[in-house]
Parts: sequence; structure tokens; C-alpha cells
Amino acid sequence: MSKEITSREADYSQWYNDIVLKADLAEHSAVRGCMVIKPNGYAIWEKMQAILDKMFKDTGHQNAYFPLFIPKSFFSKEASHVEGFATECAVVTHYRLKNDGNGNIIVDETAKLEEELIVRPTSETIIWNTYKGWIQSYRDLPILINQWANVVRWEMRTRLFLRTAEFLWQEGHTAHATAEEAIEETERMLHIYADFAENWLAVPVIRGRKSPNERFAGALDTYCIEALMQDGKALQAGTSHFLGQNFAKAFDVKFTGRDGKLDHVWATSWGVSTRLMGALIMAHSDDSGLIIPPKLAPIQVVIVPIYKNDEDLSKISSYVNELSLRLKGMGISVKYDDRDTQRPGFKFADYEMKGVPVRIAIGGRDLENKTVEIARRDTKLKQTVPQEGLDIYIAKLLEDIQQCMFNKALAYRDEHITEANSYEEFQELLDTKAGFISAHWDGTPETEQKIKEETKATIRCIPLDNKLEDGICIYSGKPSIQRVLFARAY
Amino acid sequence: MSKEITSREADYSQWYNDIVLKADLAEHSAVRGCMVIKPNGYAIWEKMQAILDKMFKDTGHQNAYFPLFIPKSFFSKEASHVEGFATECAVVTHYRLKNDGNGNIIVDETAKLEEELIVRPTSETIIWNTYKGWIQSYRDLPILINQWANVVRWEMRTRLFLRTAEFLWQEGHTAHATAEEAIEETERMLHIYADFAENWLAVPVIRGRKSPNERFAGALDTYCIEALMQDGKALQAGTSHFLGQNFAKAFDVKFTGRDGKLDHVWATSWGVSTRLMGALIMAHSDDSGLIIPPKLAPIQVVIVPIYKNDEDLSKISSYVNELSLRLKGMGISVKYDDRDTQRPGFKFADYEMKGVPVRIAIGGRDLENKTVEIARRDTKLKQTVPQEGLDIYIAKLLEDIQQCMFNKALAYRDEHITEANSYEEFQELLDTKAGFISAHWDGTPETEQKIKEETKATIRCIPLDNKLEDGICIYSGKPSIQRVLFARAY
Repeated sequence: MSKEITSREADYSQWYNDIVLKADLAEHSAVRGCMVIKPNGYAIWEKMQAILDKMFKDTGHQNAYFPLFIPKSFFSKEASHVEGFATECAVVTHYRLKNDGNGNIIVDETAKLEEELIVRPTSETIIWNTYKGWIQSYRDLPILINQWANVVRWEMRTRLFLRTAEFLWQEGHTAHATAEEAIEETERMLHIYADFAENWLAVPVIRGRKSPNERFAGALDTYCIEALMQDGKALQAGTSHFLGQNFAKAFDVKFTGRDGKLDHVWATSWGVSTRLMGALIMAHSDDSGLIIPPKLAPIQVVIVPIYKNDEDLSKISSYVNELSLRLKGMGISVKYDDRDTQRPGFKFADYEMKGVPVRIAIGGRDLENKTVEIARRDTKLKQTVPQEGLDIYIAKLLEDIQQCMFNKALAYRDEHITEANSYEEFQELLDTKAGFISAHWDGTPETEQKIKEETKATIRCIPLDNKLEDGICIYSGKPSIQRVLFARAY
Repeated sequence: MSKEITSREADYSQWYNDIVLKADLAEHSAVRGCMVIKPNGYAIWEKMQAILDKMFKDTGHQNAYFPLFIPKSFFSKEASHVEGFATECAVVTHYRLKNDGNGNIIVDETAKLEEELIVRPTSETIIWNTYKGWIQSYRDLPILINQWANVVRWEMRTRLFLRTAEFLWQEGHTAHATAEEAIEETERMLHIYADFAENWLAVPVIRGRKSPNERFAGALDTYCIEALMQDGKALQAGTSHFLGQNFAKAFDVKFTGRDGKLDHVWATSWGVSTRLMGALIMAHSDDSGLIIPPKLAPIQVVIVPIYKNDEDLSKISSYVNELSLRLKGMGISVKYDDRDTQRPGFKFADYEMKGVPVRIAIGGRDLENKTVEIARRDTKLKQTVPQEGLDIYIAKLLEDIQQCMFNKALAYRDEHITEANSYEEFQELLDTKAGFISAHWDGTPETEQKIKEETKATIRCIPLDNKLEDGICIYSGKPSIQRVLFARAY
């Protein structure tokens, strides 16, 4: 099995696929558009889940579980939602198979559902239909619920983690007595996502709001975090929606307020998905493979013994076991790879491909000198380090790697936010430097649509900290009050 | 909202439903047979997941994720599997909806799948189709993988948690080089399930093997843990299957052994589901509501202040905050319910219904006397306890409750294993005492089937520690070598 991968420069897209496959993160399945998430990939996703789940619970949210299937008619209830979601989806029409008598398994046509069921592409409709039974008074509010689930959107062109027919995600669905409270919740979750992206994924993000064209179907306002990949394309890494009273009206969910008046409930929804795996891979990795930020690495430190005979190995192992215990006691996850079926060189290449942040090699001479050799995955720097105080050294090194990875991604991102003051400049930038392009826009969906059609660039967001600035739309020449961020995106 | 529930004696089945609904564990959804798991229920399931997941990982298993959908043709590949699973299932036939022009959302007949997809009822087929690409040599074995997932079986008669069209579960799927190793794995997982049931759920179980009639479709041997509910019916709480080479043959999964020879891989699969929630509820609860074993209780201790004015409350709260910190420091989960919208009596009844193991009430006089009032949920005993050393007292009390709940369930179970030596005795026992009936059986599927048809009792298992004993089959009068356990079951 060759561990060589395509370089970013040769073919960025192939480089990405190579890493996903060769770092054993995921693969395509026998079912069109659906992926198999392999143990190496799933272990990272589990770490993401655990961290996010704690963040959600620390802010008062609880988990629950709603049905996989949604009656078709539910989609018709919220007018703009149906346009966005009830098109490309998996439709269940029958509930039985049978043997045709010749050993073939066929669909039993007598077992046709009266109403087709849709495999959830997102759960607003089934959840708001449920909330109707839970909410009568302001005392029942807020409802702060999240669910971890699989969802299906029938994508025609799929890419592992980035765009698959089935994917895993979490979706928060909250219900509030006032618009203000719902907006506050929408913003709170956006900041949680940004915190997670920056402090765990080590991926800097821009917090902003979507233009109307790019809003979630059914939302009054969509907030997002936007990250930049190494090829200069943007990736939307999480969204948080203020849904207003749209779903409450569609599903007739009202509550009696403190003042005794009846009103529709205010809603938010917010989600991140296995797409974050794509962001992690593309933001950090290099031509030798995956690079995982230490805080999300299932294995943070791998130790490889270099030995000539069993006696050497036994001495090394006895030191390593003691070191591993100390590291584990500090909450550091360690793997000691003393397999005799593979040579050290093979192991080095394999852990490099799989992105383990720190590799320790230790041989007979190291034992004599009371040293070890440490290689950090992000910079590939190797050093010989004394055994004394090694546990503290490694703990600091992991922190340093986490910070360096963020700094590197931040420097790249900041270098790739460029102002364009004419459409020509804009187009040239897209084809040369790429990244985020900050440009004036007249605020109309028509202009946004035209620019998208002509350049494939979309408005990624209007940054939350945007400054108002009079200007002229690069496309229409009409007046503009602020710059917005454009980019080509995943 | 009335918190009264039907008594067990009046209507056991209604009692169960009342608890599920009034303890806010789950409810029926708008989709036939699918449930909504509410936050109170999901929090218990999450604790179960966390404990089991650690047990799996401690025994070398890793998590992964396989597709929700399975191509129809996969089910035809393993002859007995198809009979068991490819009948009542959700069939996806189309991948698009459209607007018919009159505002109705209809299925787009031009978007019909070439091959129908089945929503997984269990994942052996898609997983073994995947393993084919992962296994070439003995070096690739064993594969020890688990997945947490939703599955769908189109059940016609559903009951919350016990039998629903969609349910949540974990399914382990392992691949081995030898039959011995696979059998060892099958048994290891059975014992893990039994350990979990007894030491966490506080539900005693019998470890045994299924008769051929009751085996998993496609297995050579099915091991199970069987629990007894308070109405004398059995509940299968977990199964572990030795699949032999059936799926490896069906999906052509071979490996080169150490000896260079090519052979089919040996398999196991094992699973437990949200059905465990049903076992927890039915094994322990009483006519006042749910009783949760402390080790699985999301809230172990609830504290309710009894006060006349704000000054009282402020003094109580200051003591409670300090107590809560100490308890949390010991890993005990505590909720302080100082809501002013509900009276103490309402809160007492509510936490009783929801099964919180320990309730502490504290009023002005308690503060003076340096005492609190403690009520344990399982026995409903109340005592006044000194504040001094209260944290240690509560920690021990939680352990005691856990043990008492197990002992009580064990005593009940052991009283309900009865020998029957004739079919008349057998039938009478079923209608009077119920429970497990230990009886001789001639070992034939025909006899088992007849008994099932005539009495609705099935062979729950042949206990692993069964003694051989010559006897006569209660039904056929033919010779028998051992007693087996019959029961009516959920």
C-alpha cells in the first residue's frame, strides 16, 4: 500500500481525496453518495461531538431525539422551507419487500404508504409539529433542545465529508417567548461555533450574516462562520438561524404570555455537521498527509521503539510504559506502537499520514543518553530532548502545536482578505489569489445572482463587525453602504 | 396536569404507558410507529451509551459509521438473513419531490431509483460488503467495530421503547481469523451486556443461548440476556451472535492465513437498543412512577427548599449551594429546585414521578436543628438526617439504593423461576404465577413452535450454566437431556 499522495499544487482536489482515503478517515460506500466513516475518522468526529455537546449543555441545552421520517405534507406547511428542502430527498413509499417466488426480492406493491415519508433533510417541521403539544404558556418556554442525528439530502455531486447524501450532524431547535430572546440565542450559538472552530479546530473563522439569497429556507436571518481553505476557497463551517415566527405559524404553535395574550412562539435552529472534518483536513494538512490539532487528536503522542533485539526492546518498553503512565495521568492520549510486523520507517510514514501531532522515537543510544527524539507533525521539526521533565515538555509542546496551527491558518487567512474596487479587479483576484474578496455590493439579490453566475463567487457573509462605508457596487455601479465578503466556496 | 397513573394491578400495560408519558420520557410522533425521545428519557439513554461505549472501548473496540441505506439486492445474498429482515422495512424508491403546479408537493416519478434502497433494519450486509475491501490477510484481523445508529423495522404493533418502527441502538460487527476467536468475542460481549444490566441497570439477567427457532437470522448461535419484568413476562435485553462464515461467504470476504491458505472470515454481531429503557422502567418502577437506579439517573439528588419568605429562602439557598458543591465534587449530580412558580408538594410529586433517587427537603426548622429531611425514591422512606457528614451519607445512600434495587429485582426474579413437569402444570403456571418456567423439551423446533402457538410462551434461553438432566419433554413426552427456560415475553 503506497502512502504517497498527490501534492496540493498538482491537484488540490485529488490531494484532499488522497488524505481522506490514505489517513483511513472515510471511504465511499456501495450506496451512491453515502460514505463509510472509518474508525480513524470517527474518533475525531467523536471528540468534536463531546466538546460541542458539553458547550451546548453548559449553555442550558438538553438532547432529545425526533423521528427519522417526516410526512410529506409537513413540508408544504412552511412556504419557503419546502422550496429549499423538499426537492432532492429520499422518499419512502413502501413498507414491505417480498420474495417473488423465483428467489428475487421485490417491493410488495400491496404495501404502499398512504402518505409518503421523507428521510429528514433537517428537522424543523417534525420538531415544530411536536413542540405544538409541549407549549401552552410562557412557563413552558424557552425550550432549548439539540439532537445528534443523521440526515439525508440527495446530492448529485458528492465529496467525502464535504457533501454527501447522508451526513451526521447536530441540530439545535429552540423556542422562545420573544424575538429578542431568540435572536440572542441565535447569536450565542454562532459564538459557540466560532469558539469551537478557533480554539479546538484551530481554524480562524469570520462571523457574519448571510445575504438574503444565502439564507436557510424559512429563516429571517442566517448567521454563519466562514473559514478559508488552503486553496483560497471558503467553507461554511456552521450556521445559526433566527426563524422568527415562521415555523410556529406553519404549525400553529402559540403560547399565553405573562400578560395573558396569545402569540406565536419565536424560533431558532443551528447546526454543524461532519463537514467540519473536511474543514479540519483542508485547513491544516500538507503534502505528507493529515495534520490534526492536538485538542482533537484521538492519539496525541505516538511512541515508536527502535531496537535491534529483544533485550533492547524490553529496556525501551519498560521506560515507555512508565512515561506513558505519566502522560496519561496528565490527560494526554498515548499510543505505544511496538508491533514487530512493521519497521520504524513504515510506522513513521503511517503516523505522519494519519496526523498524530507528536511522535517520539527511542532507541538504545537514547536510553544511554537519557534522551528521546521528538518529531512534531505540524512543522516536521525533530529534536533530541532529555528524558528528565519530558512529560511537562510534551504537554507544553502540544499546546504550542495547537497555537502554531491556529496562527499559521490565521496568517494565511488574513493574507487572503483583499479589497477589490472594480469588477475587473474582483475577477482577476478570484483567478489569481482567491480567498475572501471584500467588495462593495448594492444590496440586491439580482446583483448577487449575476456575480455568482458569472464568477461562481458568492457572498459568504456580511461580517458582524463590519464598518459602514459609502461606496459603489463593483457590479452595478449603484451606491453601496458597506463592503461584503465574496469568495468561491465549498 | 394530573400526575396520577394507572396502578400495575389495574392494568400493567397502561401503567407502563402512563409512566413513559408522565415521567416525560417519550411520546408517539406524527409518524406511525416512530417515537420522540424527550430530554428526560434521552438523558438516561445517554448515560447508558456512555457506560456501554467505555466498556466496548476498554475491550478494544472502535466506533465507525456505515450508511443508513442498504441496496435491496444485498438482502438476497445471505439466504436466512433475508427471511428475517427483508420483509417489514422502509423502502426508498424515489429521490425527488416536486410541486405539481397547484401548490401540492408530489413525488417526482422521473426520479425513480434504479435499485430500491432499504432503511437499515440491521447492518450486517452493508458492513460485510465494506469489510471485503478491508480484509486481505490475517494481519488485517481482528476487526472490532461498533456503531451507534438508528434502525427501522416496520412493526405493526408498537409500544414506546419496547417495539418501535425506528429505534436507537448500537451494533457491534467483528471479523476474526478463527471460529474460536469469534466465539470468544460473542461470549465476551454477552458478559459485558450482563455486567451492564446487573451493575448499572440493577436488573438481574439470565445468560443463555437461544434455541434454533429464536436465533438471529443468519447466525449459527445466538446468546442472550433475559430479564424478568414485574408482570412475570420476560424481556430480551441484549443479544450477541456468532455468525460463523455466513456473511463472509455471502459477501466473499476471504483472508490469507499465517499458513498462506485462503479462508473465509469468521464473524460476530451484537446489540442492545433503546429497549433497555423499557427494561429499566418495567423492572423497577411503582405505582407512583419511575424509579431510576442511581448509577443511571441524570439527576441523582434533588433539593427542594421549604420556605415562608425570602429571608428563609436566602438562608436555605446559601446552605444548599455549599452542599451542592461538595456533592458535585464527589461526582454526584444535584439539582436545586428553588422555582417560586410551584409549591413543594407539586415538586415532590413530580420528582417522584420522574424517579429521582434521593430527594432532600430543607426548611427553616431544619436549619435551626442542623438537619435535612431525606426521602429515598425506591422505598419511599423518609428520615431526618444531621447536616454533619451529609455528603458521605448521601454517597453511601446512593450505593445502597442501587444495591437494594438490584436485590429486590433479583429476589422477585428468583421467586419466579419455577419447574414444571407436565404440560398442564406448565399451562397453569403461565396463567397464575408466570415468570420463567423451567421445563424439559425434546429439542425440536416443532415442539417449540406448538408450545408457542398454544400458550404464547417461547423458549427464552438455554442458560449457559445449565445442568444436564435426563427427563421427558412436557409436550411430546420424548426424552430430553436438559431443562430450558420458557416464558411469555415482550
